[in-house]
Amino acid sequence: MGGDYAPQNIVLGAIDALKSDPNFELILVGKTDAIEEILKKEGFKSDRLEIIDAQEVIDMSDNPTSALKTKKNSSIVIGANLVKDKKAHAFVSAGNTGAMMAASTLLIGRIKGVARPTIGANIPNQKGRSTTLFDVGASIDSKPIHLLEQAILGSIYVEELQGIKNPTVGILSIGEEESKGNDLTFAATKLLREANINFIGNVEGRDILKGTSDIVVTDGFIGNIILKFAESIIGLLKYKLKMYAKKNLWNALRVLFAKGSLKGALQDMDYQSHGGVPLLGINGISIIGHGSSSPLAIKNMILRAKEMYDKNLIQKFEEALKNHAEK
Amino acid sequence: MGGDYAPQNIVLGAIDALKSDPNFELILVGKTDAIEEILKKEGFKSDRLEIIDAQEVIDMSDNPTSALKTKKNSSIVIGANLVKDKKAHAFVSAGNTGAMMAASTLLIGRIKGVARPTIGANIPNQKGRSTTLFDVGASIDSKPIHLLEQAILGSIYVEELQGIKNPTVGILSIGEEESKGNDLTFAATKLLREANINFIGNVEGRDILKGTSDIVVTDGFIGNIILKFAESIIGLLKYKLKMYAKKNLWNALRVLFAKGSLKGALQDMDYQSHGGVPLLGINGISIIGHGSSSPLAIKNMILRAKEMYDKNLIQKFEEALKNHAEK
Repeated sequence: MGGDYAPQNIVLGAIDALKSDPNFELILVGKTDAIEEILKKEGFKSDRLEIIDAQEVIDMSDNPTSALKTKKNSSIVIGANLVKDKKAHAFVSAGNTGAMMAASTLLIGRIKGVARPTIGANIPNQKGRSTTLFDVGASIDSKPIHLLEQAILGSIYVEELQGIKNPTVGILSIGEEESKGNDLTFAATKLLREANINFIGNVEGRDILKGTSDIVVTDGFIGNIILKFAESIIGLLKYKLKMYAKKNLWNALRVLFAKGSLKGALQDMDYQSHGGVPLLGINGISIIGHGSSSPLAIKNMILRAKEMYDKNLIQKFEEALKNHAEK
Repeated sequence: MGGDYAPQNIVLGAIDALKSDPNFELILVGKTDAIEEILKKEGFKSDRLEIIDAQEVIDMSDNPTSALKTKKNSSIVIGANLVKDKKAHAFVSAGNTGAMMAASTLLIGRIKGVARPTIGANIPNQKGRSTTLFDVGASIDSKPIHLLEQAILGSIYVEELQGIKNPTVGILSIGEEESKGNDLTFAATKLLREANINFIGNVEGRDILKGTSDIVVTDGFIGNIILKFAESIIGLLKYKLKMYAKKNLWNALRVLFAKGSLKGALQDMDYQSHGGVPLLGINGISIIGHGSSSPLAIKNMILRAKEMYDKNLIQKFEEALKNHAEK
């Protein structure tokens, strides 16, 4: 029931996911009547699809933590509990982000050795792949140990899900030299140097789009600001082109041509198509989608969750953290 | 002597500045022979131009603070001392940024009531003007009081230099609501609410390019990262268009058209043309340019310095800080 276009987009995305992969079962959690109406309209039936009723909805204005207590029959609480109770292997939602984080962390719980779960975002880079930025909002006022956790969990995630062997990790700072940084980067760098990851030291703001390292770790306050800044670039480009086109007819023609190529070229900067970000460090798979998720985004989130399960990500996280603790 | 193209670009920019404004005198600080050679080649003479010899050069690899002591005959040390000794009203350099900050802060000194000088950068926004971001690298691990100083100095700077009456100030955070933020924003918000500025509360990463507020204050670590991220956008666009053009001839043609309009549309995202950023809060005018400054950038820096002097900025800063302290 989460997101601006629920349950419509969620159900449509779920149908597409079931159609594209025969090897998983799906539980839709929400208002049964509303869900069945869409399924009927689409003429979709599958014995791999189950509906669990949830009559309450945590909406965008609800306080995340208190909603977990006051709305126990919401799709977010019931969904998270399905993972906690081992009745589901993964949980996906486009609902209230804070509530998803709270439900995942408090109900499903953290992996042993994780102080703070983290969210990474893929940002396209000049190497033709993407830079994964941790954290983008789950860990505010991070301590050095949190950046270390991001690097360990992130390295496994990027290696397994993006197929980048032994991915490089950079720490976001204000200069290449190790002497450049703030209190957090100085302390975190010491921990990162000793960890079993491919740490390359400081990277700068410009290195994210350059793709200098596969993974960039930073405090969640900073990552969130960069992600939102990046998402707003296309808006500025559109505005700039509009202003340029207004100057004269020749400009307008150029822009007409430019639009098509820009749209094509910038396709992967459309964060919608990625379909959600996983919350890493909790003891189960939990993927949080954008409130305005399209059916395609929902489908991608579901398939991403399945891939994380198939690749035994949680177990690999546990082992890496255990190995690190024993070192 | 500072910057990648010194003294060539510096002298050429100085000549252009002198030609475009008859109402100021200029001192070139550097190796007299090298400077005179360029002036001669350009056939330029003016009784408003003086040369003060500086045989040493602080280069990009020098440690900023220690270079002030070991290279007393460098153009940066001599230039800053000219302002300190009231022999010049402003100092402009494209040299080592750290050394410029150190020389300005330690030799010229701070305005009474300023704990940390700050650097602001103009980022074009969707309102057709620019958002000025403080701080972009002078103040790392900022305390709440430093963000307040940025807001007070920045408000005067933007009102006087950009002609925006009573400019709005936002504090960079991870949500619009006052409950969203980190330890620094919560504490700084209290100070900003009480100050004699046009404070509008939290702004997010996307609000910088949207232009939600005229001024955005944040820790210098974050501002520096955002600025460098923003500067790298054009590189990613070029790469994306190149990849898109490679797919087929039709795409290549579209991109050919797109390039012209993008170049025109994104002209003001070329930070070069802005010509340097002032270090606000020191007891004199000091403008720090990019190492690769063009003659145009140098000219703009010189004229900007003159404008700051003409508009009595330092005195206005002093008064605002005094009024704030007395409140």
